[in-house]
Amino acid sequence: MRIFPMAGASDMDVAMNKGDITRQRIIATAAPIFNQRGFAGCSMQDIMEATGLEKGGLYRHFQSKEELATEALSYALARSVRSRTDDLKHIDGALAKLRFAVQRFVETPSLMPGGCPLMNTAIDTDDGNLALRKLAQTGLSNWKKRLAVIVNAGRRSGEIRADVEARQIANTMIATLEGALMISRLEGSKQALLDARISLEVLLNCIAANS
Amino acid sequence: MRIFPMAGASDMDVAMNKGDITRQRIIATAAPIFNQRGFAGCSMQDIMEATGLEKGGLYRHFQSKEELATEALSYALARSVRSRTDDLKHIDGALAKLRFAVQRFVETPSLMPGGCPLMNTAIDTDDGNLALRKLAQTGLSNWKKRLAVIVNAGRRSGEIRADVEARQIANTMIATLEGALMISRLEGSKQALLDARISLEVLLNCIAANS
Repeated sequence: MRIFPMAGASDMDVAMNKGDITRQRIIATAAPIFNQRGFAGCSMQDIMEATGLEKGGLYRHFQSKEELATEALSYALARSVRSRTDDLKHIDGALAKLRFAVQRFVETPSLMPGGCPLMNTAIDTDDGNLALRKLAQTGLSNWKKRLAVIVNAGRRSGEIRADVEARQIANTMIATLEGALMISRLEGSKQALLDARISLEVLLNCIAANS
Repeated sequence: MRIFPMAGASDMDVAMNKGDITRQRIIATAAPIFNQRGFAGCSMQDIMEATGLEKGGLYRHFQSKEELATEALSYALARSVRSRTDDLKHIDGALAKLRFAVQRFVETPSLMPGGCPLMNTAIDTDDGNLALRKLAQTGLSNWKKRLAVIVNAGRRSGEIRADVEARQIANTMIATLEGALMISRLEGSKQALLDARISLEVLLNCIAANS
């Protein structure tokens, strides 16, 4: 078996046995491949080549391509949602938190090759795989909740106008950023993401209680 | 050969011969199938079944799946971009035109099953088919230009602030609407589109010269 790298493996090594570590490494290696090629466009052969595992080694850990794809997508979505909303608690103020979340997305719109796993799965599965689709729905729901919690905290503290709907702001932030990422990747330019940041800044200024 | 319907066929019948009409009807039938299943997920067999044509009949008009997919995507994109920006000249004022374009998208986000062909192709081809990708780039560019022309007319007439960048508004409108459509389809609810409309209304109010 070839040794292949995985982000954060060292933290996990302590609590995981060798089989768990291999399984986790397969997931981390498969995630960007599925993200780039989609469920239909990626085969177990591709994963065998990327991991250096033989067929028997791969199927010892995952019974089917669907099982591996589901785990790989869970891993990709969890990393994405976390990277977009973690570490905001050190920032004072709801609007500053939301601005920081926008800024971080614009700077690092996707953590792995192939763009945003949420959007890729939403588009890829909208006439297809239900298990993957449910994971994307959960990822979206978690992202929305994390943003809405910040908006509602800002309403309670008096920083954000009381008549603002948290869901509307969360939906708009996600829609604008994800749409801008789609344009940005299609054009091969960051311009749409920079433009989205300016427009979201206008929106956040408008929901400030003192605006 | 089975007779299959095509929107607007009667207008074309006058100027087209029988071969052209059949070709055009194949394109109109293939477009929603490619839009739903993607280039890789749709076969010439699927098109044969949908059109009722035999293999020889289909290949008489299109040498390859790629040729048919390219024509089908051109057709789908042209219809989409037109439906989103046509008929605005009867509306007075740049801001009213932009609001109307938002409203129309929210009411009819996609003309054919499978969602927006621009976004589907952008996501489907971002690691794949170059010919289809170029068509999506052109479709996006046309949509952006049409919106930017309206913004710039509003700047010249004094209705929109002179310091507003037309490209920024066009990028934001498209990003927000396309992203909201993605969320809306994933959630099976119009909420994200309705929220996008409210937020774009805030943005349009902010770029008004008298704001």
